[in-house]
Amino acid sequence: MKKPLVSIIMGSDSDLPVMKEAAEILTEFDVVYECTIVSAHRTPEKMFAFAEAAEDKGIQVIIAGAGGAAHLPGMVASLTSLPVIGVPVQSKALSGIDSLYSIVQMPPGIPVATVAVNGAKNAGILAAEIIGLQDSKVKVKLKEYKEALRVMVEEKAEKLEAIGYEAYLSDK
Amino acid sequence: MKKPLVSIIMGSDSDLPVMKEAAEILTEFDVVYECTIVSAHRTPEKMFAFAEAAEDKGIQVIIAGAGGAAHLPGMVASLTSLPVIGVPVQSKALSGIDSLYSIVQMPPGIPVATVAVNGAKNAGILAAEIIGLQDSKVKVKLKEYKEALRVMVEEKAEKLEAIGYEAYLSDK
Amino acid sequence: MKKPLVSIIMGSDSDLPVMKEAAEILTEFDVVYECTIVSAHRTPEKMFAFAEAAEDKGIQVIIAGAGGAAHLPGMVASLTSLPVIGVPVQSKALSGIDSLYSIVQMPPGIPVATVAVNGAKNAGILAAEIIGLQDSKVKVKLKEYKEALRVMVEEKAEKLEAIGYEAYLSDK
Amino acid sequence: MKKPLVSIIMGSDSDLPVMKEAAEILTEFDVVYECTIVSAHRTPEKMFAFAEAAEDKGIQVIIAGAGGAAHLPGMVASLTSLPVIGVPVQSKALSGIDSLYSIVQMPPGIPVATVAVNGAKNAGILAAEIIGLQDSKVKVKLKEYKEALRVMVEEKAEKLEAIGYEAYLSDK
Amino acid sequence: MKKPLVSIIMGSDSDLPVMKEAAEILTEFDVVYECTIVSAHRTPEKMFAFAEAAEDKGIQVIIAGAGGAAHLPGMVASLTSLPVIGVPVQSKALSGIDSLYSIVQMPPGIPVATVAVNGAKNAGILAAEIIGLQDSKVKVKLKEYKEALRVMVEEKAEKLEAIGYEAYLSDK
Amino acid sequence: MKKPLVSIIMGSDSDLPVMKEAAEILTEFDVVYECTIVSAHRTPEKMFAFAEAAEDKGIQVIIAGAGGAAHLPGMVASLTSLPVIGVPVQSKALSGIDSLYSIVQMPPGIPVATVAVNGAKNAGILAAEIIGLQDSKVKVKLKEYKEALRVMVEEKAEKLEAIGYEAYLSDK
Amino acid sequence: MKKPLVSIIMGSDSDLPVMKEAAEILTEFDVVYECTIVSAHRTPEKMFAFAEAAEDKGIQVIIAGAGGAAHLPGMVASLTSLPVIGVPVQSKALSGIDSLYSIVQMPPGIPVATVAVNGAKNAGILAAEIIGLQDSKVKVKLKEYKEALRVMVEEKAEKLEAIGYEAYLSDK
Amino acid sequence: MKKPLVSIIMGSDSDLPVMKEAAEILTEFDVVYECTIVSAHRTPEKMFAFAEAAEDKGIQVIIAGAGGAAHLPGMVASLTSLPVIGVPVQSKALSGIDSLYSIVQMPPGIPVATVAVNGAKNAGILAAEIIGLQDSKVKVKLKEYKEALRVMVEEKAEKLEAIGYEAYLSDK
Repeated sequence: MKKPLVSIIMGSDSDLPVMKEAAEILTEFDVVYECTIVSAHRTPEKMFAFAEAAEDKGIQVIIAGAGGAAHLPGMVASLTSLPVIGVPVQSKALSGIDSLYSIVQMPPGIPVATVAVNGAKNAGILAAEIIGLQDSKVKVKLKEYKEALRVMVEEKAEKLEAIGYEAYLSDK
Repeated sequence: MKKPLVSIIMGSDSDLPVMKEAAEILTEFDVVYECTIVSAHRTPEKMFAFAEAAEDKGIQVIIAGAGGAAHLPGMVASLTSLPVIGVPVQSKALSGIDSLYSIVQMPPGIPVATVAVNGAKNAGILAAEIIGLQDSKVKVKLKEYKEALRVMVEEKAEKLEAIGYEAYLSDK
Repeated sequence: MKKPLVSIIMGSDSDLPVMKEAAEILTEFDVVYECTIVSAHRTPEKMFAFAEAAEDKGIQVIIAGAGGAAHLPGMVASLTSLPVIGVPVQSKALSGIDSLYSIVQMPPGIPVATVAVNGAKNAGILAAEIIGLQDSKVKVKLKEYKEALRVMVEEKAEKLEAIGYEAYLSDK
Repeated sequence: MKKPLVSIIMGSDSDLPVMKEAAEILTEFDVVYECTIVSAHRTPEKMFAFAEAAEDKGIQVIIAGAGGAAHLPGMVASLTSLPVIGVPVQSKALSGIDSLYSIVQMPPGIPVATVAVNGAKNAGILAAEIIGLQDSKVKVKLKEYKEALRVMVEEKAEKLEAIGYEAYLSDK
Repeated sequence: MKKPLVSIIMGSDSDLPVMKEAAEILTEFDVVYECTIVSAHRTPEKMFAFAEAAEDKGIQVIIAGAGGAAHLPGMVASLTSLPVIGVPVQSKALSGIDSLYSIVQMPPGIPVATVAVNGAKNAGILAAEIIGLQDSKVKVKLKEYKEALRVMVEEKAEKLEAIGYEAYLSDK
Repeated sequence: MKKPLVSIIMGSDSDLPVMKEAAEILTEFDVVYECTIVSAHRTPEKMFAFAEAAEDKGIQVIIAGAGGAAHLPGMVASLTSLPVIGVPVQSKALSGIDSLYSIVQMPPGIPVATVAVNGAKNAGILAAEIIGLQDSKVKVKLKEYKEALRVMVEEKAEKLEAIGYEAYLSDK
Repeated sequence: MKKPLVSIIMGSDSDLPVMKEAAEILTEFDVVYECTIVSAHRTPEKMFAFAEAAEDKGIQVIIAGAGGAAHLPGMVASLTSLPVIGVPVQSKALSGIDSLYSIVQMPPGIPVATVAVNGAKNAGILAAEIIGLQDSKVKVKLKEYKEALRVMVEEKAEKLEAIGYEAYLSDK
Repeated sequence: MKKPLVSIIMGSDSDLPVMKEAAEILTEFDVVYECTIVSAHRTPEKMFAFAEAAEDKGIQVIIAGAGGAAHLPGMVASLTSLPVIGVPVQSKALSGIDSLYSIVQMPPGIPVATVAVNGAKNAGILAAEIIGLQDSKVKVKLKEYKEALRVMVEEKAEKLEAIGYEAYLSDK
């Protein structure tokens, strides 16, 4: 079994229904990942150990998701020189604005590559783009994926043009 | 010299013009404090060491100020069972909304006692209120302080009533 | 029966499903509390009497929850020198942003220790941290609670690592 | 000297440069007012006494201005059955959004007639509209004021149409 | 039948479930009102005619509710010297923030007495407070209403204190 | 069959339930339109080809709807000198604020005529207003439409005035 | 002298420094315009007369700018079947968010073609795009303008590439 | 001369004072970059050509900065399979919230690695982290940079602890 190149971590298992999309898309790209729970606030020592060990384990990209006062992505970024991708998970009261600001507004010196609120799929694609710089198989799969997106949209467009919006909507 | 009961920390020396107000008011209340820079992102190990040692040093309350994706107060709170007061420092682009959300929206289990954007003076007073539960001298000073506020406002009110707003404004 | 050390008040009984979490966690920490309804706007005299009497009754910390133009925490804080913890209750139209700003943005001189929107559990923990400065039993319970949180997260992490996200999600 | 019909109060003398516009416009409408400082947070007892005495003194409308966690208008409204007009004073970090939400989002039962951020002039006009329901002289003055506004705008419009925007701007 | 003193208008019949609360509370205070639909955007001529005729019909206060780009309260205010109370109706996408800003941020010269998002009941109470300045029966009813609010809150408080939050919640 | 004058495009078929309202109203005005899917991000070449060909095909107005980081309206506007109307489609986490800002805040040189969040019907009417400048039949239909709106509102107003709000609401 | 095709109106002469950019760009496109002040709130009758007369005067597009609770564009749109372009003028406290929401969030039936906050130049270009549908000279000028923008950006890009950012910045 | 690995592009030369920080930090890390202006809206063809050619030129990471309705980062991302880092440039009216939402809220399939408002330095560091996965010299420099940050903060902390905040502030 190949060693994981991407580590997908999240602050709570309640983030898993969002974060699994990163895992799914990496599977589609044949990028090996590991996936676990690391809480900045509830397991700070584990977070330290995790972040400091990631590079030596062969991890190339870390994807970290969290909601509310979301400190996990930024704290992990402060403890590694690997690229860290942050996924702001939608929160209840503030709908993820708090998560987004807590992740994206990092101070100079410690970047977090932030994607959209609940944007775990894009986090996976971004990780694949980074892996793809060194792995031509992943690069090819990325291009095929983009091409498939294009074809899917064009097929939908053709269908809509052919049958009109009423038929299209009742057909869904 | 007495040991400090309150620790005032901040993520960057650019926060000092705000955070010094906590120090000033604690001085006024004769509460001994220490004051230093601890960056969650640039000195994470120091932050860990600081937070884990605070209680044993005799610290009773930690005041932590930070701006932007402000992780210091929450991270320190995750590493101690002392009460932690968070001061959201006003940021440039988002005017401190990012700092406020990053500090106040902590997940269940790890509270941060958040004050207003740039509210370092209130952080100091809140620390004194906590200290004052055990120290009647501080309690007395707090009551005197509130009384002095009341008197100051009432004197201003009397002056305004006596001379009218035009004279009052030109007199300032 | 022991006298209460913490007073949990709220502006309306519609806040009770949120505020009860403060009571539950204080019970878990064996901190005696009282719990009642005090409305800044509908029972202002009672609020005055309550706030001015709290200290003499032996209360050490007041937890006040309110929503919308949430004046209860700040007004109580203006009438006591005890530490006051404010819980912004989520409102309908503005989702608790109004509650948060009304509670946290207090003027210099009158702090309110604000927690997250609907963060009543954290209000209870913060109260316990303050009580724990004088009561080593509470302090021990707090440390056990944090340790239990850590263990729970690590067990979940181990399970997720062991069985993968698909099994984990279908198992919930 | 006639007894005041309108009471203009504010939480701090730093609000006076904004709140004086209420006084100025009431002077223009020959409505007698009183003007003073009453702080919900720093002089709560005075606020109580003020609000409960207002009606018996002959006051018909209270104008209350405050910034940040602005509790003065709502608290005064809870203590009187007179109409209370709230002026959200622009705050530093949050630019008056906090003041606005703290004043306008009052719970059912206790209205505050809220005007724009820094809208003290409109607070004065609104007070005059209320007084004008019983005082035909004030009513006449209000109509003259609106007419004068209309004429002023129309004169500016004519000038702009006559000389063009370049000349208009360099003429200012 | 007595002539109406308050006119309740709204931009659309979709606002009626919110705006009826103004009617209900005015009925409770025995204040005669009229209630109709006037759209600033769909019936602008009718709005003009309505606003200009209101005073001569004996109307003393106008309550106007609207959502989204809510122009009705401000436009009516520009066409009358009666006090106009604006009710921001909660909108779908922006949750009433658009309605609130469109109503409260009026320019100098044309005030609208704005209440909370969906705050039609408070609009009715505010109208009654204005009517009550001239009508002692309404004034008495207002005081009774406030007293009843107080009693209701205190009874709930007593019940909560007596039976505890668990019994209270399961009893609801 | 007549050639389309308006092109309705959207970034995804998930926008169709919103965007169909533009098609419906244009049908009502007898304005011929085409309707398809063009994604700025998934089919950028098609978007280029579409935008550059639109004018030569006889299109006079383009209506473009998109949500989130909504680039379609602005990018199409950059590639044509036809008027482009942008419809911000409501997004999940940020409720369309992101869509609105991404569409309306275009830099100098490249305007997009932005309507309300989910305002596709208004986009259709605005297109008809532009077409109506050259086509008196469309102009007549627009005036009839506005008149019908007026009549509908006035009939509702009459019904509400006649039967009162309770009967009106139970009748719906 | 040719009759104006575009009418530029604004709620106050304080909007002129922003709105003049619409006039300047229309001059550049040789589109004849008129420019005046029409206040929805201070000159409502004039606004009515203006809006109802515009079409018969030969006006094809109305550009309306206003700030705060900005009702002018929407009210004019309700009174004409001409396309109306709204310019949200930046306000002091809320920085134009209030202006934007008041203009763009129009209800179904009455569109306003909204541009960016302070986007008067784009309002002028959008008007020219509409005029250009019937006037090939304007169309040609629009294309030349876009071409000139392109060239200007490319020249700057070449300069930046040639001399580097340091020289470029010190050269400005 | 070595071929550039990073391409820094921006929508306007007004973004250069912000974006130059990406160039400066890449210089510090000895990462070769190119820097130019590419406007999504004013030079769309050039943007297409640029994005499609970047990979073949040997570029590994693209850093794109833009403000307002900031489409450049997302459009470039749609045209390449390289990782694209987006820098939201602070805008005048909306202070960069518009830029941030336009860049970060990308739809599934097309990620943009977003950094803080005006966070160009962090964009450069993030690019170096990606380059550093393949280039151990860059990796070493990154670690040295982080270490230097740590030392700098610790030296400041020591100075503050040694001389106190008053001397520290007057010494700056």
